[in-house]
Amino acid sequence: MYIGVDYYPEQWPKERWKTDLELMKELGINVVRIGEFSWSLLEPEEGSYDFRLLDEAVSFIASYGMKVVLGTPTATPPAWLVQKYPEVLPVQEDGQTIGFGARRHYTVNSRVFRRMSRHIVEAMARRYGSLEAVIGWQTDNEYGHEKSDRSYGPRDQKAFQDWLKEKYGSLDDLNRRWGTVFWSQIYTDWAQIPVPRKVFQEHNPSLLLDFDRFCADAYTSYNKMQTDALRARIDKRQFITHNFVYTGLAQDQNAIAEDLDFISFDNYPVWGGLAEPIHPAAIARQHDLCRATKQGKGYWVMEELSGAQGWSQIGYLPRPGHLKLWTYQAISRGAEAIVYFRWRAARFGTEQFCHGILDHDGKPRRKFEEVRGVIQSLEPFADDFLEAVFPKEIGFYHDPENEWAWNIQPQSDNFSYPQEVLRFYEPAHALQMQTDIFREKEDLTDYKVLIVPVYFLAKKEMNEKFKQFAEAGGTIIFSYRTGVKDADNVVTDQTLPGELAELCGIEVHEYDSLRGERKGSVRGVRGALGGTGGNTEVWCDFIEPISAEVLAVYEDTWFDGKAAVTKNQYGKGTVYYVGSGLNRDMLLRLYKEAFTEAGLSLQMENTAVETVRRASGDVDYLSVMNHSTETAEHVELPAGSWKNASEKENEHVFKGLITLPPLTSIVLQKPKIT
Amino acid sequence: MYIGVDYYPEQWPKERWKTDLELMKELGINVVRIGEFSWSLLEPEEGSYDFRLLDEAVSFIASYGMKVVLGTPTATPPAWLVQKYPEVLPVQEDGQTIGFGARRHYTVNSRVFRRMSRHIVEAMARRYGSLEAVIGWQTDNEYGHEKSDRSYGPRDQKAFQDWLKEKYGSLDDLNRRWGTVFWSQIYTDWAQIPVPRKVFQEHNPSLLLDFDRFCADAYTSYNKMQTDALRARIDKRQFITHNFVYTGLAQDQNAIAEDLDFISFDNYPVWGGLAEPIHPAAIARQHDLCRATKQGKGYWVMEELSGAQGWSQIGYLPRPGHLKLWTYQAISRGAEAIVYFRWRAARFGTEQFCHGILDHDGKPRRKFEEVRGVIQSLEPFADDFLEAVFPKEIGFYHDPENEWAWNIQPQSDNFSYPQEVLRFYEPAHALQMQTDIFREKEDLTDYKVLIVPVYFLAKKEMNEKFKQFAEAGGTIIFSYRTGVKDADNVVTDQTLPGELAELCGIEVHEYDSLRGERKGSVRGVRGALGGTGGNTEVWCDFIEPISAEVLAVYEDTWFDGKAAVTKNQYGKGTVYYVGSGLNRDMLLRLYKEAFTEAGLSLQMENTAVETVRRASGDVDYLSVMNHSTETAEHVELPAGSWKNASEKENEHVFKGLITLPPLTSIVLQKPKIT
Amino acid sequence: MYIGVDYYPEQWPKERWKTDLELMKELGINVVRIGEFSWSLLEPEEGSYDFRLLDEAVSFIASYGMKVVLGTPTATPPAWLVQKYPEVLPVQEDGQTIGFGARRHYTVNSRVFRRMSRHIVEAMARRYGSLEAVIGWQTDNEYGHEKSDRSYGPRDQKAFQDWLKEKYGSLDDLNRRWGTVFWSQIYTDWAQIPVPRKVFQEHNPSLLLDFDRFCADAYTSYNKMQTDALRARIDKRQFITHNFVYTGLAQDQNAIAEDLDFISFDNYPVWGGLAEPIHPAAIARQHDLCRATKQGKGYWVMEELSGAQGWSQIGYLPRPGHLKLWTYQAISRGAEAIVYFRWRAARFGTEQFCHGILDHDGKPRRKFEEVRGVIQSLEPFADDFLEAVFPKEIGFYHDPENEWAWNIQPQSDNFSYPQEVLRFYEPAHALQMQTDIFREKEDLTDYKVLIVPVYFLAKKEMNEKFKQFAEAGGTIIFSYRTGVKDADNVVTDQTLPGELAELCGIEVHEYDSLRGERKGSVRGVRGALGGTGGNTEVWCDFIEPISAEVLAVYEDTWFDGKAAVTKNQYGKGTVYYVGSGLNRDMLLRLYKEAFTEAGLSLQMENTAVETVRRASGDVDYLSVMNHSTETAEHVELPAGSWKNASEKENEHVFKGLITLPPLTSIVLQKPKIT
Repeated sequence: MYIGVDYYPEQWPKERWKTDLELMKELGINVVRIGEFSWSLLEPEEGSYDFRLLDEAVSFIASYGMKVVLGTPTATPPAWLVQKYPEVLPVQEDGQTIGFGARRHYTVNSRVFRRMSRHIVEAMARRYGSLEAVIGWQTDNEYGHEKSDRSYGPRDQKAFQDWLKEKYGSLDDLNRRWGTVFWSQIYTDWAQIPVPRKVFQEHNPSLLLDFDRFCADAYTSYNKMQTDALRARIDKRQFITHNFVYTGLAQDQNAIAEDLDFISFDNYPVWGGLAEPIHPAAIARQHDLCRATKQGKGYWVMEELSGAQGWSQIGYLPRPGHLKLWTYQAISRGAEAIVYFRWRAARFGTEQFCHGILDHDGKPRRKFEEVRGVIQSLEPFADDFLEAVFPKEIGFYHDPENEWAWNIQPQSDNFSYPQEVLRFYEPAHALQMQTDIFREKEDLTDYKVLIVPVYFLAKKEMNEKFKQFAEAGGTIIFSYRTGVKDADNVVTDQTLPGELAELCGIEVHEYDSLRGERKGSVRGVRGALGGTGGNTEVWCDFIEPISAEVLAVYEDTWFDGKAAVTKNQYGKGTVYYVGSGLNRDMLLRLYKEAFTEAGLSLQMENTAVETVRRASGDVDYLSVMNHSTETAEHVELPAGSWKNASEKENEHVFKGLITLPPLTSIVLQKPKIT
Repeated sequence: MYIGVDYYPEQWPKERWKTDLELMKELGINVVRIGEFSWSLLEPEEGSYDFRLLDEAVSFIASYGMKVVLGTPTATPPAWLVQKYPEVLPVQEDGQTIGFGARRHYTVNSRVFRRMSRHIVEAMARRYGSLEAVIGWQTDNEYGHEKSDRSYGPRDQKAFQDWLKEKYGSLDDLNRRWGTVFWSQIYTDWAQIPVPRKVFQEHNPSLLLDFDRFCADAYTSYNKMQTDALRARIDKRQFITHNFVYTGLAQDQNAIAEDLDFISFDNYPVWGGLAEPIHPAAIARQHDLCRATKQGKGYWVMEELSGAQGWSQIGYLPRPGHLKLWTYQAISRGAEAIVYFRWRAARFGTEQFCHGILDHDGKPRRKFEEVRGVIQSLEPFADDFLEAVFPKEIGFYHDPENEWAWNIQPQSDNFSYPQEVLRFYEPAHALQMQTDIFREKEDLTDYKVLIVPVYFLAKKEMNEKFKQFAEAGGTIIFSYRTGVKDADNVVTDQTLPGELAELCGIEVHEYDSLRGERKGSVRGVRGALGGTGGNTEVWCDFIEPISAEVLAVYEDTWFDGKAAVTKNQYGKGTVYYVGSGLNRDMLLRLYKEAFTEAGLSLQMENTAVETVRRASGDVDYLSVMNHSTETAEHVELPAGSWKNASEKENEHVFKGLITLPPLTSIVLQKPKIT
Repeated sequence: MYIGVDYYPEQWPKERWKTDLELMKELGINVVRIGEFSWSLLEPEEGSYDFRLLDEAVSFIASYGMKVVLGTPTATPPAWLVQKYPEVLPVQEDGQTIGFGARRHYTVNSRVFRRMSRHIVEAMARRYGSLEAVIGWQTDNEYGHEKSDRSYGPRDQKAFQDWLKEKYGSLDDLNRRWGTVFWSQIYTDWAQIPVPRKVFQEHNPSLLLDFDRFCADAYTSYNKMQTDALRARIDKRQFITHNFVYTGLAQDQNAIAEDLDFISFDNYPVWGGLAEPIHPAAIARQHDLCRATKQGKGYWVMEELSGAQGWSQIGYLPRPGHLKLWTYQAISRGAEAIVYFRWRAARFGTEQFCHGILDHDGKPRRKFEEVRGVIQSLEPFADDFLEAVFPKEIGFYHDPENEWAWNIQPQSDNFSYPQEVLRFYEPAHALQMQTDIFREKEDLTDYKVLIVPVYFLAKKEMNEKFKQFAEAGGTIIFSYRTGVKDADNVVTDQTLPGELAELCGIEVHEYDSLRGERKGSVRGVRGALGGTGGNTEVWCDFIEPISAEVLAVYEDTWFDGKAAVTKNQYGKGTVYYVGSGLNRDMLLRLYKEAFTEAGLSLQMENTAVETVRRASGDVDYLSVMNHSTETAEHVELPAGSWKNASEKENEHVFKGLITLPPLTSIVLQKPKIT
């Protein structure tokens, strides 16, 4: 298994390299990522290359027996490039040009920038494409991060118009599908179509969604330009990857992933803007997303946080144990390599306060020792563990286009896509279920339950898959605002939930956006919800049951007794509809009922604890993690005697109820019971 | 009486028109507004017109016996126009140009835009000006809405300079009246005068007020261009109106109204940004404003909300009963026609979530039935009711220039013009008084009481009218910050309240702005206020009584005992001065005293209940409305036996104390007691 | 002693001048500042001067025996200048040009603007440089105020590049010291270096700090241009000063002060944006800053608030007594002249609501009488008092570059430089200690204690001075984040607190930024802190004591027991390190211990009371002020019998415990005990 560090040899005196590499060696590091911000060093003026320092660094690393991952340096175009070709700079929604001085200051819709990018990538490929120590490449760095996903300049507008021409063929078709007859927006010339710069009110939602698709496609093709340039010049054994972030960007990571050998992820459970780490379930869901980006394929964590992070603002200091916990969580959920960010905190530049395994003074201390412990603990089992497969239990729906549609029209000021997704994901996580994220293309056959929250932008083929899944006996849980839109971001003319109405066995005639401080109230009337009650948030669909039975109803002066949660038999399957932002307690009860009836066996419920079950050959693995920083948690192990996978001998036996101190993580294993 | 809908035939397949018109017919709809956003449809390229679809729609509507109101489509200039003449686009205060993609993307100070507007208006007038089914015209749509009232581009600057030249004649006069000697702003060339773009601090308040006047005048003349173009070409029987919004814009609705046959209003008691409807008194005041816009003349509600509204954010769902309540409130306070917005929710475009009588699926349901009920209930009495006159009781002062002056200098961060106006209006509304809004030109003779809140920008002729009114025996209630400014937005050099000092019988030497969390404390010492006390907000005028008597004083470490509320005899009249943002309870007590002493008879006080008294010939009408969504309210009827005006026979008799369930509204009538 | 007013004769009819001057005379005013915003009056077109009105005003004032301070009018470039040379306008960080219409609308990096400025200054100097009545000059007005300290236009960029070339000599040196190898920012041409306009993320902190230095230097050289132009033409007896504000601007007041005869300060303890006055200690610290700006030299308050202030927002009305209190505070802490802002509130222009001694109606009332009282009370002792010297007790560190560095990287969203400085200053103020502010150049020998809070940007020479000070027996109190950065804004590679580690006797290996609602908890374990405990905010340095002893530790799940406050013996001295934003109670206890052990005698502790001790010849002075608006406070006088310095005879004797009513201030005196 690869365990590495992100290293910036160019930022340190060469005299220090030796100390650094020896310390890495001592830790057990076997791979180093370098070079991804080195453009101005490698190409100090247009077309003139200077690889001396990079050559030296690669050789030096290789001399310690470590491998190298090289980043293409296109995330930071040099000052000379911007000076010579200012047109490469991106433009904000308000018309302001983003200047030189940080990173990601380019638009992928600049042809000059694509050409400049291709040249440096080709030059690097030629130089390092056959070098033994170089095992692979990372293209650019965190595409689209820091609002660089959308650009609104004249070059972007022209590219958008070309993209639309390609998509729609005729203006008549575009006008019809966008509904430009509304507000007199009929286009008679492609050149009239704007990028969505500031207007007095709001743009056409169909244009906005297509603009997001266009922005995503532009990055996909930019990346393909890089992978093509690399593949034509590098050894087949060298891989190509890209380190993604998943933060609601106008990016289609799955599409980009088609051109990569595998994907990578930059894992920061807490960063500069945060007082505390995000919820364990939110981290877990990001790993599920990584696994879903390339059809379940394992991925690298190319940047795994190792210290407090931040630019001008510094975030929460990860506590002792966090580093191992987040590493174990990543590996348990599908990461196949871990590269820690960063070896040592930089003394200068914007990221001075991105702390690493070493801090500014370069002395190994607590974090160094923690990394050492992690690597040692993984050694006995990691290679086998990476081969272990996940059980198929719960499929969780996610489609970036749906997220974009919600961002375009949140409909309630209390709606946030990540928060609502977490509302429906977290109880499954707390119930220790194995979740996979799926989009259109995945085979859903083996799942027991699908959770499909805020499925606002509904696509025909997906709708059909849902029907087939339920027909065949599966359980689906939908939420409020299901089936409202078609792929053009146009509202269905069928009664809600549109094409899913029969599947859910309901109609929705009225709904209420819960804005500001408003909350709704719900009372359970049947099944697991019978006798319960509580608040509900964000939105109320007032449901008319057709064939569905009612599990909970609203308490409301005017819509009292209207159905809030329903359950429908469809074919051999069961379809739930949760018409509101239900409180966690009721949602948890509902999930327990649904999961149990779907044949899944419940183990325990604990929001701080995360367990992951995998199996390799005849060995069962159980990852057990306590995310609480304050309290020890109890975990009831599945039947049998388990051992600590890190221990070569069976030094300790674990069975029944075990207690995990705060911030501890462990992988257990036992022979499969056959 | 006209009851109609806003309809967009161009947004639906023609096959659907029949269903729509039949449903409208079923409801009793007799007028349909169309066309106000159809420019790109009607003039697909400059000078080339295509009226086919509009012809067809008008004919089709007419074939059902309904009338048509045609909107001129200038609120949405087509894409080709913006492409060809980008100079028509408006410019924000920060220099950013507002782009194509929504609506109202034009500055009325563009000569090209005026010419293009005139051409399309003339073409429509020629085509439909003699058509039987067309009964009238709406110019443009909601002038100035969505911050389109002010534009800061070079064309606007030139027009502003021309407007100033016209107003002042000489730079010497302008320099003197604006006080440009302050901060070295003496202009020596008209071309030096800026529009108020971003500066390090704040512009000269005199320039700012003139800029608002200029913006208002520019729209008035733009509208006159349209009405002139129409009147020269249309039948005399066709009316011309415009649908206003009243939200503190740089617009002089009264001036625009001079060129209209009557005014219209778009009535949205709750919209996309609101968690709940605005206060009933705030809606009532907007209707008073409508009635005041053209000397008491009745008006149309051209857009009456019929469902939840919003763009990317959806507002509160109006509850069952709201639709009737708000319709009744409108008609009771002076609306002569109601046009519901909109027939059916659009499936595409920015206003997808502006719900209508029908929702996206086009099926008649609750709201359809509510409209049916409203129309049926109005049928027996509406035509007579519209003729009924209002008693003259209380005049409430409002001058847009005063509002602009406050917006320029709010003086306390707790000051909001709408909130302070509501502070002084609401208790009169709760006391079920009949209020009219007045400006300079109205005859005030018949009023008993004038309420003149936050009369900051005081004008000589108005001051004289107030003196005459009090002299003759009337009662006036002024508030803090009265008489501070003259018409040039310059502070008076007389002791405050300036020209009103003698009228109020006081002087104000010191005052304190209550910012942030600061509140004041007041204790009543005489009359209705004796023995009371409580908080006060926003502002404290510390009053020196000259001839006035003191009704309440401040409790303050340093200004303890200084007068806060005073009452002065002036001629035969009485003048109150409320020196602070007094709490509602004390203000209500003060109003009761003032109204009673002025000879008005008090009935009841209830902030949720609204009653309107009118009389037509020998019939008295009493509209009774309960705005509460939760509680039934009791209403003590005036003497006599009342009947439900909607019932043809005297099926029920109402007398004495009646109980109104939540969200109910009724018009009662009885023969006048003579 | 000079006591004056800021007067604007050009804003009033000449008929009024007589009344104004007679009223001033009646008060005892002896100096009048005029002219600082009169450019468009004096130079109505380029190169053509009109001094008639100013001549007349100066003569008129002189005819009353009063002196004149003339302001150069460059803070308000005329409209004709901006029309002719729009390039003088400043540019915001977002690229927006600041327009004409308020004040300070120029960049000092415009060569045209410097030339225009020089011409008007020279013309004024020629005309008034020998005039008897004119005793001195104020250059411009409040340099850098209202965000005018930084400009980001092309002229600024060029000047910045030139400044960098001058500073670094070679790009290699700049690249190395800024660390431009980070994120590929290596500059190969000076013209590539940006001003810090908007980027996707954040600029290099080294560039940002140099940009602040550049902006400060640009103003210093602009001011020097004015003082050179003046000095070449005016009498030696005429002084030159500038009225500073101290609000974290990119300004180096001390550098500017080198070209002035003395500095001035505009003292507004409450202004338009504030609900209440700032903390007494915050005002006191500003006076300390004034005294520190030119090596302890006395200064003028050129604008001393005399009424409520504000532009479109009006601030808190200063209560009766405030005017005297703030005047006494200023004089007690080093002001040598007081000029009240402003004589009378302007009727027009942006500052209509900057109230003065007279309000808009021009009638003398409360504030007039208060000023009369102040002037009369000062008369008996002021001249002697101004000569009195301050005891040297506590030196308080402040370096604007350190403040800029913190503004560039606050590191916690709870960090605010003024708030943290107040945290460490206020307890010393409450303990009635005499504080001086020092930077690099001051001689620290005589101080007993140095307080050095948030010493983030540490400079070598300063570090050495600290060591020498402690070595020699002094006490120093450092805070968290000491010694992190070097002068290039680069993080030290030594273990924290870097070069100060040995001095403090500690190391800091880990730290935690307390963001959002997070607080820390601390428990005292020794000395004055033993047995105490409480919250801590903003930041936690987890301290490893090396030679220091531990006074308090953290209570934290993971870092429990880590040192939070330490005390180290260094040479003959004592060095405290306060590793967190400690609560006031614990900090106060710590200060008491530190001050007492350092040989200072504690008198009392009261945050509302301020005492200042000075001595002149054989007279001791004690200023005693109660800042509370609500409560009387007790003050224990130092031994002996004191008299009221305002009383010529010993009418009252003060000794022992005296009681001060709210908002009272008094200067006591007694013969020195020898």
